[in-house]
Order: sequence, then C-alpha cells, then structure tokens
Amino acid sequence: RLELEALYADYTAALDEERFEDWPDFFTADCTYKIIPRENFERGLPLATWLSENRNNLLDRVVAIRKTMVYAPRYMRRLVTGIRILGWEGDALQVRANYLALETLTDELTRVFNTGQYRDRIVVEGGRLKFREKLCVFDSLLVPNSLIFPL
Amino acid sequence: RLELEALYADYTAALDEERFEDWPDFFTADCTYKIIPRENFERGLPLATWLSENRNNLLDRVVAIRKTMVYAPRYMRRLVTGIRILGWEGDALQVRANYLALETLTDELTRVFNTGQYRDRIVVEGGRLKFREKLCVFDSLLVPNSLIFPL
Amino acid sequence: RLELEALYADYTAALDEERFEDWPDFFTADCTYKIIPRENFERGLPLATWLSENRNNLLDRVVAIRKTMVYAPRYMRRLVTGIRILGWEGDALQVRANYLALETLTDELTRVFNTGQYRDRIVVEGGRLKFREKLCVFDSLLVPNSLIFPL
Repeated sequence: RLELEALYADYTAALDEERFEDWPDFFTADCTYKIIPRENFERGLPLATWLSENRNNLLDRVVAIRKTMVYAPRYMRRLVTGIRILGWEGDALQVRANYLALETLTDELTRVFNTGQYRDRIVVEGGRLKFREKLCVFDSLLVPNSLIFPL
Repeated sequence: RLELEALYADYTAALDEERFEDWPDFFTADCTYKIIPRENFERGLPLATWLSENRNNLLDRVVAIRKTMVYAPRYMRRLVTGIRILGWEGDALQVRANYLALETLTDELTRVFNTGQYRDRIVVEGGRLKFREKLCVFDSLLVPNSLIFPL
Repeated sequence: RLELEALYADYTAALDEERFEDWPDFFTADCTYKIIPRENFERGLPLATWLSENRNNLLDRVVAIRKTMVYAPRYMRRLVTGIRILGWEGDALQVRANYLALETLTDELTRVFNTGQYRDRIVVEGGRLKFREKLCVFDSLLVPNSLIFPL
C-alpha cells in the first residue's frame, strides 16, 4: 500500500511539475490509457475523450503538448485519495483511486477542473511499478476548458 | 493507520459508486450518524441536518434514496485526507479526518459541494472495523443543492 | 512515510481547528516559512506573499491574527495529498506534497481558496518531526479574499 501511495504521488508530481517527458515511463510499452466520461463507461459505450493504446502513442502526445498545441498558459494540480487494492488479476494488481484536478489560468482564480476515478492495472517491470492500463473515468461531461494535459 | 486508510477508501467508494445498500454495513447495529453544521457543533447546539440513531434508520434512508426521493441526477465524489488517530476511549478508537465532497449535475461543471471534518468512533466487530459513531461536521451552512446522499 | 502522514494531518488539523497557538511549535526556532506564487518561485524571483524567518516571527503573526487583524469570519480547511520523500540533505529530510485550501465565509458556499505545493525540509528535534523550512508555492496569483491564516 505504501508503495502504491508513493507511485501515485510520483505520477501526479511529474504531471503537476510539467515533466511530461517522464510521464510515459510510468506505463508499460504495451498499455492502455483512456479518459472516458462516467456515463459512457457505465453504459458500456466505448467513446472516450482520450485513447492511447501503447507507450509510443503517449510519447506522441507529449510531443504534441510541447510543440503543436496552442493553448492559454495554465497550471494543473492533481490530488489523489482513497487508493483501494482490489486484488490480483494474473500478474496485474487492480487498483482504484479518486482524483481531483484543479486548474489555474493566468490572472484567474483556481477552480475545479475535473474529478473522477482511476481504474488501474499495475504490474511490476524491472523492479518498478508500472501502469499496464489506466482509465480515468470522470464525473462531468463538461470541463471548464479543453483537455490538454494528461490526468 | 493503513487499516484505517483502507476503511475510509472503502467507505467513500461504496458511496461514490452508489452502492448505497452496502453503506449501513459500515456501521454497528447501535450507532449514531449525524451531519451537523460546524457552527452548531462548536456552540453545542444539537440541531443536525441529518440524524440517524441506529443502523435500521440508515437502511430506511437508503430505501428513501432508492424509492421515494425525487431529485435531479448527479454524481458525488468524496476525498478523505488527514486521518488522525486520537486514541482509545474504552473499546472505541477516536479518529478525525477531513473530507471534501464534489458534486456533478448532468450537463454542469463539477463543483465543491461540501467540506468538513469526520469525527468518528470506530470499533472492531467480527474482525472488521465499523463506525459506532460518525459525525460529519461541515463548514458551510449552505450547500449548492439539497443534501440527498450520505457523506 | 506513516510518520510524515501523521505530521501533515496534525499540522492541518491545528490550523483547520484554529488552534493557531499550536502552529509555531511545528517549526524549529530557526526556520523559514514562506508563501510564494509559483510564477515567482519558478523564475527565481524572491518576492513572497508571506515571509517569516524564525519561530518568533510566526508567534507575532498568531498574535496579529488574534488581536490586530480585522476580517470577515470564515472557516478554512486544508487537504494534503501526494506526500513524496526526496531524500536527506544533511540532517534534513526533503519532502514535497500537494495541498488544497478551501474557504467558507458565513452564509456563502464553500469554494477553492488556494492550491499549491509544499516544499519542506524536516528535521528531528527532541524526538519530534519539525519544519526547518516550509515553502507554500501556490498556483494562482489571485485568492478570493486576502490571505489571513497560514497554509
């Protein structure tokens, strides 16, 4: 449990501190990363806001954030609580947690950006915990601005 | 401490995932569940927003949520942090924690619903931790909508 | 790690419960306490919103809160997540964490007050963990009201 808490703390810190190049390393080469509205998820609808199906695709996204995308400068901060270990499924640990993402645009007040549940499958690779699957199931169909950074 | 963290994670997950039927099982048969404004609590005023005095009463509330109440659909999400163990009082462990509840109505942005302090007495019953008393002391006299789900 | 979680839980509880007189005791006599905007921090600009350079100065601030300052009554609540241990630097442990402060004014809804990162140096003094340095690096240049209470 303490190792998992450290994993989530390191994961959110990499994103909060905008060390996006470190982000794909939290995943296995063959992985699924998905951000999906809770309503779609609960109805079994596949439509996702973000779908990456391997680590190279995550790297492409990082390049897009750094080089391609045009967006207003902002800070994001992520709080993760309520880590739950559901058990092993083969060699992967099934884990759930709640997250809250806060957004601050220049010269604006901080506001709630997005909240939801992480539904993760975590494996040990080279002595380190890595995400083989990470679903971010978010409660609101709306976000204050477009989704630019990972959750 | 780790057992307590797991307890609060399981407790909030049952509510966040709307498994309300599981919720009374977190309490002893003879229990107190109260949601009370901080101002009333600090002044010693008994007036509470929600008062249940045993587990059967919690079950009645679950039936009311499922069958009776009319309310706009919404998702709630609860973050619990800062768990503190104050010590034993007889066979009950006195525990404090902070909670934050976020609410998302259909087609609306997620917003802060309610924040406050859990003031709990926890006992071991049948090898499991259960709440004998749970007070939710909340900071604001106002909530964005009416209080429908437990905290 | 568990000792650190207890430290942060005790620290925020002292502030949330307005036991401000207990607050300076979380610091060493010779300490730095600073609240600084993230933009200034990242650019290396020294300008801070709050700077105290020893524990006596923290005590002076508590007196000011109790006796001098005029402000609308409010409740604050602080959530700390994502505690990370970066390692030892001499006899001090370098620690990072995310915090979220929520504010509730009388007859108003609870709202996000401030979010940011704690950047702390913690030492053992008389068998107890104490802050030798605590930086609160916050994401927004704006806060809904003036900064009155510590973070």
